[in-house]
Amino acid sequence: MFDILHRVGMKAPLDKVYQALATPEGVAGWWTTETTGDAKVGGMITFRFTDDTGRELGVFDMKIRELRSNTRVVWEVVKGPPEWVGTQIRFELKQEDDFAVVLFKHEGWREPAEFMYHCSTKWGVFLQSLKSLIETGQGQPSPNDVKISNWH
Amino acid sequence: MFDILHRVGMKAPLDKVYQALATPEGVAGWWTTETTGDAKVGGMITFRFTDDTGRELGVFDMKIRELRSNTRVVWEVVKGPPEWVGTQIRFELKQEDDFAVVLFKHEGWREPAEFMYHCSTKWGVFLQSLKSLIETGQGQPSPNDVKISNWH
Repeated sequence: MFDILHRVGMKAPLDKVYQALATPEGVAGWWTTETTGDAKVGGMITFRFTDDTGRELGVFDMKIRELRSNTRVVWEVVKGPPEWVGTQIRFELKQEDDFAVVLFKHEGWREPAEFMYHCSTKWGVFLQSLKSLIETGQGQPSPNDVKISNWH
Repeated sequence: MFDILHRVGMKAPLDKVYQALATPEGVAGWWTTETTGDAKVGGMITFRFTDDTGRELGVFDMKIRELRSNTRVVWEVVKGPPEWVGTQIRFELKQEDDFAVVLFKHEGWREPAEFMYHCSTKWGVFLQSLKSLIETGQGQPSPNDVKISNWH
């Protein structure tokens, strides 16, 4: 199995970052504006991605596996691109000085396919968007996300 | 062993991207302005990082393992942070439509330590800097790189 890892830190209280990860409204501010669903363990969230003309690029259904206040959020991919199904997306939170630190892991990829390379870079871009949302009030969620290649 | 993966694409001829990876002058435009050394297989390159006050943050000595025109650049870390020594940094290039695509792999980490999470995100930031250098003429190499956390 192969994992995507990232670490970002932002000057903010842990709770503010946790809310941006643990609720659909929060995630809509940095990953995709089309985020809908639950905010409780066992619930489902749907994330929809479109390009700037409204054409659908992808839809992901995830089950909320863990929600530990100011500590951890874990999703399991139930529906989406075949490479993603069965993988888990994990955010671990901790305070360091006046920074809230997020350790991110997208774990359980079956092979390091080219799509995994792409998703790794793209997750980094979205975590920068989370940092920007928390620190400035303005993220860059899809469909206004930073484009990194011919793949989006 | 654990690897950091990234994929970026830029609208440019392959050769322009290759030059930015295969020569110290090229790398100075997107990774660290303090890049010096060789541009031939078996040669050495030194990368030095400072913060904006000039304080040294780290120095890396790398051996150039492969240079294949418009195709591949591979470095091996000879000196630097203990987690990096012995790892390899690999750039594979290919053309897709009017994009030059870079598949990046920093391979051979002995464990997925927190420093690896940080380096993964930071490599993503620097590859965005490479894309910006190629597409706009202006990268964001150290010491003017994008800061991602309390660690830099």
